[in-house]
Amino acid sequence: MDDRTGQRIVPQTGRRPENRYGNRPTMKDVAARAGVGLKTVSRVVNGEPGVTPDTGRRVQEAIDALGFRRNDSARVLRKGRTASVGLVLEDLADPFYGPLSRAVEEVARAHGALLINGSSAEDPDREQELVLALCARRVDGLVIIPAGDDHRYLEPEIKAGVATVFVDRPAGRIDADVVLSDSFGGARDGVAHLIAHGHRRIGFIGDMPRIHTAAERLRGYRTAMEDAGIPVEDSWMSLGVTDPERVRCAAEEMLAGPAPVTAIFAGNNRVTVTVVRVLAGHHRPVALVGFDDIELADLLKPGVTVVAQDAAALGRTAAERLFRQLDGTLITPERIVLPTRLITRGSGELPPAG
Amino acid sequence: MDDRTGQRIVPQTGRRPENRYGNRPTMKDVAARAGVGLKTVSRVVNGEPGVTPDTGRRVQEAIDALGFRRNDSARVLRKGRTASVGLVLEDLADPFYGPLSRAVEEVARAHGALLINGSSAEDPDREQELVLALCARRVDGLVIIPAGDDHRYLEPEIKAGVATVFVDRPAGRIDADVVLSDSFGGARDGVAHLIAHGHRRIGFIGDMPRIHTAAERLRGYRTAMEDAGIPVEDSWMSLGVTDPERVRCAAEEMLAGPAPVTAIFAGNNRVTVTVVRVLAGHHRPVALVGFDDIELADLLKPGVTVVAQDAAALGRTAAERLFRQLDGTLITPERIVLPTRLITRGSGELPPAG
Repeated sequence: MDDRTGQRIVPQTGRRPENRYGNRPTMKDVAARAGVGLKTVSRVVNGEPGVTPDTGRRVQEAIDALGFRRNDSARVLRKGRTASVGLVLEDLADPFYGPLSRAVEEVARAHGALLINGSSAEDPDREQELVLALCARRVDGLVIIPAGDDHRYLEPEIKAGVATVFVDRPAGRIDADVVLSDSFGGARDGVAHLIAHGHRRIGFIGDMPRIHTAAERLRGYRTAMEDAGIPVEDSWMSLGVTDPERVRCAAEEMLAGPAPVTAIFAGNNRVTVTVVRVLAGHHRPVALVGFDDIELADLLKPGVTVVAQDAAALGRTAAERLFRQLDGTLITPERIVLPTRLITRGSGELPPAG
Repeated sequence: MDDRTGQRIVPQTGRRPENRYGNRPTMKDVAARAGVGLKTVSRVVNGEPGVTPDTGRRVQEAIDALGFRRNDSARVLRKGRTASVGLVLEDLADPFYGPLSRAVEEVARAHGALLINGSSAEDPDREQELVLALCARRVDGLVIIPAGDDHRYLEPEIKAGVATVFVDRPAGRIDADVVLSDSFGGARDGVAHLIAHGHRRIGFIGDMPRIHTAAERLRGYRTAMEDAGIPVEDSWMSLGVTDPERVRCAAEEMLAGPAPVTAIFAGNNRVTVTVVRVLAGHHRPVALVGFDDIELADLLKPGVTVVAQDAAALGRTAAERLFRQLDGTLITPERIVLPTRLITRGSGELPPAG
């Protein structure tokens, strides 16, 4: 392959190639400046044998003088592999994804791969666009926190060799590696903990019902209530976007009226933070258990009892499976569920008031 | 596509994006309204010379009145550019970078560009490796939170047309666009606030001294002390890595002995969180002001007084400058300093004890 074709991307999905190089120095420029042939420059750039030390030095001087850099994308084309991994998050600003991202990056780095991040903002179309954009950039693999529930669009990519692991939420309508926290069991245990402390009127505030973790945590809540023989009233459950205004309204509604809830189970860290604020201004104590740990939860009065996930373990497990797919030692897709951990700090142990 | 919603990625390899702006005003419309030729409008838009101030103003008024925006995508196609921006962070898991990343991503998305993230883990070599890897992947531009202090390695990339904006910390040894928070002024004001509440023995715990923000905040501390005529003892200042063990030791040392500090200024959010924990277990009240806001700071007892930065504004400002570089309307590198804001919540207003 000569350097002209080397400077073009041929995307695997048959999209139009495009010259992406502007006015950067090419191998041809280096060859001209060093007074050698293109093949010689290619040998030096790729560390191949067959170049005398003197010629090698001349080529290197030309490379330095021109600021030439090898086009990794062209190498991708030749070798069929980049060293890069894409991570598709839901929200770059959600603190839950910080340790998860860092764990994926650390595993990627240990394998010599670059991590490329992006976020879907909980929009399935945006997720698909981002995933396909990353595939078009020839990532070796993808760790995906999915926003959507139909991932058949990934089938051609997976067939073309892109390793794929879903994390935090399962893939939809395709057979894929999945690493999850035990949302159902964690929520069930957290709600059972409130019941064990005497609560019967327990509210549940969660994320949008189409999100797998939100649905599973609601199912855990309902199961714990059913196991205790407590009929659940509709007004005790609120699922929706987790912005502070919505959560605040939901909490205040459950806490108002003649028969308010005496405890709240918060379906994720964003919900917990808002509920903590609402309860801080409330006229009587209300018990609270939150899914996901939050920073400084132990220093609040009362401390916030939580069902903690290990976000770093999720990321690490997913990334390690990804590289096992890439090195061919992992063939069969599996679903791995990591346990959660109840951390009692006071708010979940308050007795029912009123 | 409607660029206001920013809901779609303009793909970098295939689909033709030239109709992205639909029936938006064109340069022709601007020329007609301003009563000038097309070339004049082009000169103004591209910041080229040869336009009188008066004409420039007339064109700018027409641009503003019509809401004209240059069609970046057409330019992408013409110049063979990809639409992607790299963001090099210090630590993916630091909550300060969450809103910053999201703001950069939102601006990138509004310009039809994909955001590629990576982190340097505060290692200058890793920063350089990551930056050059992103350049080799042909990003259009880079927003960099630098770990190193010598960025001459970027000069060939900048010459080759890669737009570059440094954020949170300045570039080293190159002339570049920089967007910073007022670390010096913020720290000076925060320490002056403690002095105004009667403290003289004030400790400063900050990040590693080679980090620009850490050095600037220390300078702010020293200036406030000097302005108040208070000689600073060496044992009151501790700079180093911000892991909890180091910070805990530093705080405990300052709080021990016959003449302990009565107040601490914490140099960033990681330091503040650890100092809050140390003070929660301390036998007498110690005043605290932290640089950076922290979640739930208002609900702690006492609430944590902070010097808040606007992380989202840093990211947004940096990304907007990046795209102004790319569309040719920003030529001269500048240093932009965003103000900080003192938020009083109780911990910084405690009187000296002991």
